[in-house]
Amino acid sequence: MLHENLSVKNGRLHFAGYDTIELCERYQTPLMLLDENMIRSNMALYKSVISEFFPAGSMPLYASKALSFKEMYRICKDEGIGTDIVSIGELYTAISAGFPLERAFFHGNNKLDSDIEFAIDNGLGYFIVDTYDELYAIDRIAKEKSIVQKLLLRLTPGIDPHTHAAISTGKVDSKFGTAIETGQALEIVKVALSLENVKLCGFHCHIGSQIFEISPFCNASDIMLDFINQTRKEFGFVPEYLNLGGGFGVRYVESHGTIDIRQAIKDIASHVKAKCQEYNLEMPKILFEPGRSIVAAAGMTLYTVGSIKEIKGYKNYVSIDGGMTDNPRYALYQSDYTVLTANKMDEPTNYTATIAGRCCESGDLIQEDVQIAKPTRGDKLAVLVTGAYNYSMASNYNKVARPPIVMLGKTDRVVVKRETLEHLTALDV
Amino acid sequence: MLHENLSVKNGRLHFAGYDTIELCERYQTPLMLLDENMIRSNMALYKSVISEFFPAGSMPLYASKALSFKEMYRICKDEGIGTDIVSIGELYTAISAGFPLERAFFHGNNKLDSDIEFAIDNGLGYFIVDTYDELYAIDRIAKEKSIVQKLLLRLTPGIDPHTHAAISTGKVDSKFGTAIETGQALEIVKVALSLENVKLCGFHCHIGSQIFEISPFCNASDIMLDFINQTRKEFGFVPEYLNLGGGFGVRYVESHGTIDIRQAIKDIASHVKAKCQEYNLEMPKILFEPGRSIVAAAGMTLYTVGSIKEIKGYKNYVSIDGGMTDNPRYALYQSDYTVLTANKMDEPTNYTATIAGRCCESGDLIQEDVQIAKPTRGDKLAVLVTGAYNYSMASNYNKVARPPIVMLGKTDRVVVKRETLEHLTALDV
Repeated sequence: MLHENLSVKNGRLHFAGYDTIELCERYQTPLMLLDENMIRSNMALYKSVISEFFPAGSMPLYASKALSFKEMYRICKDEGIGTDIVSIGELYTAISAGFPLERAFFHGNNKLDSDIEFAIDNGLGYFIVDTYDELYAIDRIAKEKSIVQKLLLRLTPGIDPHTHAAISTGKVDSKFGTAIETGQALEIVKVALSLENVKLCGFHCHIGSQIFEISPFCNASDIMLDFINQTRKEFGFVPEYLNLGGGFGVRYVESHGTIDIRQAIKDIASHVKAKCQEYNLEMPKILFEPGRSIVAAAGMTLYTVGSIKEIKGYKNYVSIDGGMTDNPRYALYQSDYTVLTANKMDEPTNYTATIAGRCCESGDLIQEDVQIAKPTRGDKLAVLVTGAYNYSMASNYNKVARPPIVMLGKTDRVVVKRETLEHLTALDV
Repeated sequence: MLHENLSVKNGRLHFAGYDTIELCERYQTPLMLLDENMIRSNMALYKSVISEFFPAGSMPLYASKALSFKEMYRICKDEGIGTDIVSIGELYTAISAGFPLERAFFHGNNKLDSDIEFAIDNGLGYFIVDTYDELYAIDRIAKEKSIVQKLLLRLTPGIDPHTHAAISTGKVDSKFGTAIETGQALEIVKVALSLENVKLCGFHCHIGSQIFEISPFCNASDIMLDFINQTRKEFGFVPEYLNLGGGFGVRYVESHGTIDIRQAIKDIASHVKAKCQEYNLEMPKILFEPGRSIVAAAGMTLYTVGSIKEIKGYKNYVSIDGGMTDNPRYALYQSDYTVLTANKMDEPTNYTATIAGRCCESGDLIQEDVQIAKPTRGDKLAVLVTGAYNYSMASNYNKVARPPIVMLGKTDRVVVKRETLEHLTALDV
């Protein structure tokens, strides 16, 4: 199977040890499942391997934009890792869950003054500053509140890891960060060091998503360490933190690669260590921001098959009771997904199906022309590896309600309730 | 200006007679505005011209998936038009607004049994049936409730009007409807006529979106009338209704065309009339489903400029306090939009800007390389023609709250409240 949390018993797909068909009966569909053990194991793996190979104080920050609700922050707290948040919505959710904000890092290319104020008032650990406007705003607001605010600067190393344009972020031509190549990064460091109410603690870069090799991370760290060597020469400044971002690849379909996280982090560490020795630099504390690689394969979405339409010479459309409203990634990026007929796991996968969502929009598809066991109305379809950027990107298009999220741990429990008709109209006057 | 509800006074953009900068101060940004007069005028125009040129009982159905909240259904009710709804979420919203459901037509490629039951229990006028599964389900549920349910059948005429694939729906290879070309449409009519608890009242087709010529509508009506001629021959069945769908184009940017709705409907009517005479058919009542062409140009979104990043040799990124969360159409379809610096309308539009949303995603852009008056932090940007498929497709990605909608009529009033942090986490356990 695609991931080790999947198995088959009596012709039924099991996930995290649970019978998916029983879960459909108990919770109805569409239904999103999460494998708690896999989430915790992934967090613990990142934490232990980063601690082992990097200096004390290095740690993973869960990139919560991948999937953000209260219980996720409780799990991060439990596992003793940090978090990367990107809005006051995420910050508020983390606060509501009792997450210790000194381990929270606030990202975003356009933080409003009100966001900055809200974060400072709640004791945010670090801002990851995108540009001058934000830097000045933080200094001003910190001054008003008589504090010194810690921050990192987001820089663009000028690397294109050849992923989808929408999720490639390390290029110079990016809405994020300040470019090293153009000399603008050095200028903003100088300004940050000159301000009285901010404390520059490090640099951040993020090169993209769905990366299966370590070379882009090594290249990025080379550029960042070279830059740190420059800031040492120019300003005598060596940062406490170097944040190498996230982007470790996830296997969505059989043809995708895999990455051994432990080995990858270890190899990146060797590379960084050698580079630091070359420059005679003390190795900074290293941060990583895994999001997708923590939650993606820990997620599964279950749907019930409704209408089936076989158009001779064209396609077989299998309609489900969800779609782009809970998973817009095929509509946005034509992303690959594995689809299984969860109650017919012993039958041959010889039916070519286009999985259509229920929205009144032709583009509302989950996959085109995938091979599955032939379904009939009422069967259950499982879409695998939906933990990241599915629920978090969900909409109410067509006024379709969002599904619940059920966490599968020692017991199964609802962690996000199914959206109701009342919730859908609660903002209407 | 692009549309007649736009004007400039004292260097400020006015919309529907209101000073947009004053509205930003009163309601904060991001802010969605709607021009009530334009919405009502568009509905009234469709109603009057359809009444004038087609048989009594013909009418427009507002395609509410374009923008669905309670006040929209109240306006539809006031204006005496019907509505096309696509989910029980929309149906519930219409019911909550007191909309008379006998004028509601329920679309969708995958209606669940529970949807069908909910609609029948609430006195839905018509289902627009997509396929056999649904047809049988309606008949069965109607029988249980001892009623005869009225319905139309959705057919695909096999026309590709050359719009974006995601919004082109009349092709044979579509998740919607039953194909005429393959003979499957004739079969489903036979079945529908044989069932005891449904009453077949007509046929529906929808060829796509953003159509500026009448020829696709004329071609579609030719195919549909030819099909009706067949059903008369085969089964002695001539439908009461022919629903020609929606799809009239809207001008988003100066280079787009325009369409004179009155002339277009009049010309389509002449064409349909001639075809009916040719076949010696009594002209059916004609339905249209305008959505975009009613609300798109009646909408505007206002944002505040935050960070501005000028990357030498690349782009100038102007970040706003919204983005793909309230308008995912550029990310999904690379849709064109007109952007104006609303408080600098007297200044030259000689600054090349890429308008970036605030999400942690490179693809979160509203437009690339548009010419606007050079903005600075705090300026207001207006994105025009955002009434359709913006708010309705909005998400909480990055846990960003959705903006409010303010209706500009005789007075300005909030019709959808700004989403709060509490609302964002209300479903979390």
